[in-house]
Amino acid sequence: MWVIERNLYDQNENDVYETLFTLANGYVSFRGVEEFSNRKIPGTYLAGVFDKSEAQVTELVNLPDPLGIRIYVDNEPLLLELSELLYYDRKLNMKSGVLESTYIFETSSGKKIDISSKRFVSRKNRNRFAIKYTIKPLNFSGSILIENYIDNRTYNGMLDPTNKIQHYQVLTSGEEMPGILSLVRTFDRGHVIAFRTALKGMNEDGENILKLRKFRMIGQNPCELFMIFVDESREYTLEKFGTVYSSRESCDPLKEASLELARFYVEGLESELNKHTEIMNEFWNRSDIQIKDDETAQKGIRFNIFHLYQCVDDDPTVSIGARGLHGEGYKGHVFWDTEIFMFPFFLHTLPEYAKNLLLYRYNTLKGARKNAELNGYEGAQYPWESADDGLEVTPKWGQDYLGNPVRIWTGDEEFHINSDIAVALIHYFMVTGDEQFMKDYGVEILLETGRFWASRVEYNEKFDRYEINRVIGPDEFHEHVNNNVYTNYLAKWNLTKAREFYYWLEEKDAAKFEILKSQFGFTKREVENWQMIAEKIYIPRNDSEKLIEQFEGYFNLKEYEITEWDENGLPKWPKGLDLTKLGETKLIKQPDVVMLMLVLPEDFSQEEMRINYKYYEKRTMHKSSLSPSMYSIMGLKVGDTHNAYKYFMKTLLVDLEDNQGNTNNGFHAASAGGAWQCVVNGFGGMTLESDGILSFSPWLPKNWEALSFNLSYKGSMINVRITKEDITFATDISIKIRVRDKVIEIPPGRTTIGLSS
Amino acid sequence: MWVIERNLYDQNENDVYETLFTLANGYVSFRGVEEFSNRKIPGTYLAGVFDKSEAQVTELVNLPDPLGIRIYVDNEPLLLELSELLYYDRKLNMKSGVLESTYIFETSSGKKIDISSKRFVSRKNRNRFAIKYTIKPLNFSGSILIENYIDNRTYNGMLDPTNKIQHYQVLTSGEEMPGILSLVRTFDRGHVIAFRTALKGMNEDGENILKLRKFRMIGQNPCELFMIFVDESREYTLEKFGTVYSSRESCDPLKEASLELARFYVEGLESELNKHTEIMNEFWNRSDIQIKDDETAQKGIRFNIFHLYQCVDDDPTVSIGARGLHGEGYKGHVFWDTEIFMFPFFLHTLPEYAKNLLLYRYNTLKGARKNAELNGYEGAQYPWESADDGLEVTPKWGQDYLGNPVRIWTGDEEFHINSDIAVALIHYFMVTGDEQFMKDYGVEILLETGRFWASRVEYNEKFDRYEINRVIGPDEFHEHVNNNVYTNYLAKWNLTKAREFYYWLEEKDAAKFEILKSQFGFTKREVENWQMIAEKIYIPRNDSEKLIEQFEGYFNLKEYEITEWDENGLPKWPKGLDLTKLGETKLIKQPDVVMLMLVLPEDFSQEEMRINYKYYEKRTMHKSSLSPSMYSIMGLKVGDTHNAYKYFMKTLLVDLEDNQGNTNNGFHAASAGGAWQCVVNGFGGMTLESDGILSFSPWLPKNWEALSFNLSYKGSMINVRITKEDITFATDISIKIRVRDKVIEIPPGRTTIGLSS
Repeated sequence: MWVIERNLYDQNENDVYETLFTLANGYVSFRGVEEFSNRKIPGTYLAGVFDKSEAQVTELVNLPDPLGIRIYVDNEPLLLELSELLYYDRKLNMKSGVLESTYIFETSSGKKIDISSKRFVSRKNRNRFAIKYTIKPLNFSGSILIENYIDNRTYNGMLDPTNKIQHYQVLTSGEEMPGILSLVRTFDRGHVIAFRTALKGMNEDGENILKLRKFRMIGQNPCELFMIFVDESREYTLEKFGTVYSSRESCDPLKEASLELARFYVEGLESELNKHTEIMNEFWNRSDIQIKDDETAQKGIRFNIFHLYQCVDDDPTVSIGARGLHGEGYKGHVFWDTEIFMFPFFLHTLPEYAKNLLLYRYNTLKGARKNAELNGYEGAQYPWESADDGLEVTPKWGQDYLGNPVRIWTGDEEFHINSDIAVALIHYFMVTGDEQFMKDYGVEILLETGRFWASRVEYNEKFDRYEINRVIGPDEFHEHVNNNVYTNYLAKWNLTKAREFYYWLEEKDAAKFEILKSQFGFTKREVENWQMIAEKIYIPRNDSEKLIEQFEGYFNLKEYEITEWDENGLPKWPKGLDLTKLGETKLIKQPDVVMLMLVLPEDFSQEEMRINYKYYEKRTMHKSSLSPSMYSIMGLKVGDTHNAYKYFMKTLLVDLEDNQGNTNNGFHAASAGGAWQCVVNGFGGMTLESDGILSFSPWLPKNWEALSFNLSYKGSMINVRITKEDITFATDISIKIRVRDKVIEIPPGRTTIGLSS
Repeated sequence: MWVIERNLYDQNENDVYETLFTLANGYVSFRGVEEFSNRKIPGTYLAGVFDKSEAQVTELVNLPDPLGIRIYVDNEPLLLELSELLYYDRKLNMKSGVLESTYIFETSSGKKIDISSKRFVSRKNRNRFAIKYTIKPLNFSGSILIENYIDNRTYNGMLDPTNKIQHYQVLTSGEEMPGILSLVRTFDRGHVIAFRTALKGMNEDGENILKLRKFRMIGQNPCELFMIFVDESREYTLEKFGTVYSSRESCDPLKEASLELARFYVEGLESELNKHTEIMNEFWNRSDIQIKDDETAQKGIRFNIFHLYQCVDDDPTVSIGARGLHGEGYKGHVFWDTEIFMFPFFLHTLPEYAKNLLLYRYNTLKGARKNAELNGYEGAQYPWESADDGLEVTPKWGQDYLGNPVRIWTGDEEFHINSDIAVALIHYFMVTGDEQFMKDYGVEILLETGRFWASRVEYNEKFDRYEINRVIGPDEFHEHVNNNVYTNYLAKWNLTKAREFYYWLEEKDAAKFEILKSQFGFTKREVENWQMIAEKIYIPRNDSEKLIEQFEGYFNLKEYEITEWDENGLPKWPKGLDLTKLGETKLIKQPDVVMLMLVLPEDFSQEEMRINYKYYEKRTMHKSSLSPSMYSIMGLKVGDTHNAYKYFMKTLLVDLEDNQGNTNNGFHAASAGGAWQCVVNGFGGMTLESDGILSFSPWLPKNWEALSFNLSYKGSMINVRITKEDITFATDISIKIRVRDKVIEIPPGRTTIGLSS
């Protein structure tokens, strides 16, 4: 239940497993490359190390690969593709955060050698990583060559040849006792990154086995070569120590990396591994979800939680890209995926990281203000795609399959990201009650996003209303639409919240309030004007007709019926459809109206939810991995359970099954967040109500005996355990909770409430 | 009969086929890398471009690989290891000197594409090489990416990791219309080498198809990327033009390479290919051997001849390494292999190249003089292993399998190389009658090698004789031996020849003679002293005992009997033998006494030859690829035909069968020369007698219907055709020839002589 295993080696699957087996600590990430393969796509990323150079847009930089190692027997490199592979097994142990491999190679001359390894990226010291190899010659004695190297030949776009680019130059690379080093600088941003690695080698008695060291530069790659002499059937240990530092945190990264390596080398690998495992245990104690009697779901949810955790560290200047730190999909850019899909997991189990995610937005406010200014608006316009500085980095142009340029409009029109961030902010405050955060950062974001909306709306004199025209909503099939409900509704909400917190701050912290006013010129008059605008923002919703039109004119579009589903249970394109004219049809990519109802559930009645869910689900192509989970949750909300489990499993297994066919580009982080929401908000039926009360209305799939998870709430941790019969809360504080519309005061300790009503 | 084919792809065989499919023109060489493979050992060598840097000894430099190309369909690179391979065929067409490949790839999405190619390295313009690709999408239309790049990441020692080293640094690499460039410099010798490549792409109507060019530096590799749009079942042509220049021939190699590329690009690929093929045809007209009714032998002998020819160009400052220009075995060093094994082929069919090989020795005389000086001798001591300057480059130390250092003595003791060169020189003069060469270069070499021997011998007062102690003869199992017959006999011969040509030069060219005397201090007294030494050099040979002792004390060594042979028909080590003490046994690595009898056949009687052949053959382990061919020839000479064909085939197929298991390190050039000698001197029974007359005493294997070859003789070409019944000479001059002891005056035209006597 804790292990993701690969026991058949097919080099064509390496790129997918590299994503699945990525090890990261939120600071540095290594794709799970098979170090003994010729067929690998090394990916080494440092959170926040972006660069543009000759690339189309600023992107996460693929840095040198310090994991380089080769073992030669009779001058023949042990290679998965070359040697006879008598045994192969690779396991991601999610409990401990260790990647464990076992191989038995047979060389062309018949020598058999057993090599097993443990790789980890330390949670204790974020600059450290290590691999421990155990080597056992099975049928020979003799010499073996061990080569430790750093690969300075990596580049971005290994899976995307038209966008191949190496973002760094090698400043220096060479040797420094113990081991080797590489110091590189990104061309554009000038980030300087240092890598250091070194080996230890021991026999069973702990004596050094590394002999005859040779150091060579092969091109720009530093390589150190050792000979070891081995006896048949004895075990030898090779420990590889690695450190990395960047100029983001140090003014002399090479010196820091070397000092860190020296300390690491002395303290030892096992000691570090123990500390790392301890922290992993603490993490699971807080964030684990237990699903009884459904192995696939159990393993799957842990997989998603594990990789979400791997994306965070205590750095308030970075956030989580759409594909995590696991690959180059979407170039490491941050979307609404973070606030709307991933954020709840962090908010409810690891709120300190949720806070960092919001701080990233605070720290990129400057770029967001610049975006607004460049586009002729006021306030802050958060970028649809965000990299290191908050400036818009959505590519302007793509290519169709004939190489013709295609204009990409999301960066120009997908404004809802602004309110999405405001939503996450308010949720954070509701769950944590962190007033200090609101005072220092939150209110400023609310005011600036509110101000943006006030400048973005257009007054329609004829109807005396404010409109927001030429936008893209969550459903990206439809561009340049007017008055998208999701956008308009949340803009209104954002304006209202901005006004509310303006007064809140005035009351709570007069000094901060004065600073905000004097620095950014907010006035009572301005915020009152927002309220006026909010009231008059056009929402195409009327009481007689519960079905909400996604945007003006949507109901007049061409109807297409989805009648076929692929082997993954996802809709196939209806026949006769022109894929270049999706905007003329009612087909949607992912929930839009339904999404709004999930974001602000209390604003809509059960009946509205049911009607809209039914209507839009039939027209949704699920062409986003963000889509199925949301329908799963909404289905459960409106009592349509029949698709809930199916959609949940699609979401849960998007990477494990590679059911979108692009896991090689990285982890589907939003989908992972969606899977967590499916479990907690869907099956667990948890809703964070606007009065701050947690409400539960659970429903368990047939094959689930029990579901258990923790929720962090106002500084405490509540354990929730749900069966088909009852729900049990374990808490050390007294807390008001709603279970199926009944508000209950839960005392400290364990409380079970029947669900049989 | 003209084609070496590979039609099953197994990546583990790539390294061997890279040697077999090497294309070279004596100036530049490219190992036959599969450009669409991940598993390749690129080898790009320029004759004479050696470097030492941090290597153990000066070695032939593996230069950047300019053959880099990638074809992507749906961003998926076509790779032999990755794609489904529906068809694979690769052929070396030896007639035309073209490497032809055909692949049908199927991508992971089921797209099928037929790619065929022709690669050649021009014999017309040695700085040019090219590949023509034909691309045909079989079941799809769409876009394809074409990437042209130069790989600046190559290094020496890809098969020998302890000796990994990159000998060059990249001075500049980038783009220049048309195409890309790379300029590198070797660290130590400072050779500067420029590579240029560029693409043309055409549809069936000859219209350009290359679109959307992008240029990128990936690390130090220049890459240009094009998109092409293809229609199903149509054919597209891609022509890759390449040029290379080095500072050995130009003071601005990059400019030259660019100008050459521009000319080549304009003249076109087909035009160059036609000229190249014409020259190949001329070559075959001179050097082909035809063997009727033995396909294996026919193809095999052509293979050997073809690759020998690939090693030569008209550059008098380079010679042929033990592994040709085909790999890094023996680090590109030149041994006696060239003069004793390969030389006869060139001498008798392409004497202009034979002359160049001797000129290489003349041009390295300075280094040879330095070797003598450093070792305390006089004259010139040619190095056992020779690179670019004639200094000794034999490694001093090797390693046993436990990593212990082992002293290598050949560079200190294998003096016979000096006389081997003198032998080739005299043969050259006998066959060509090239007096000018002797005057300008030959005599100087003879005098200097003679002078060396006079300083090397030791006078033994007790026996009033000169001895040469502490040497290694051709058989390298025995080190530090005294009075090795091969060495002593040829030293004596060398001294005699030196004296003879001293007087010859005095008579022929007084001016040259004066120069030699004044510059190097030769005197009549000195050369007369040589004659005295020559007469007193100890040759352990006595008339009562026809069996010659290989060196003093050999007959007292331990006897071991060879009783088992491996699957290649080569001897296995006798049981109970200690391989570290071979010197204490009578086992020998390769012919030594027998070798002497082949070098100077007229000095030994038939009986002596037979007795020594019988004795030593039984004790020969054939641990050199030079060994079997010599026993084949000697067997034929003494009438023991039973092993002749077997040994011949071992020699002939050493690379095609990889029967030494090290063809991956390069072509066995000496073995190839030995194979030619087997055919011409062995089966053809040709001997170059000391009176300059060609004598024939043929014997054909059962399965050979006829044997035909050409011999260049004093500026004319004689065609010799042998059947079991007769021998036919076709010549345009009148020439004296011996056939089975009868001297016959052959008139111009065709003359057949019966062999039935």
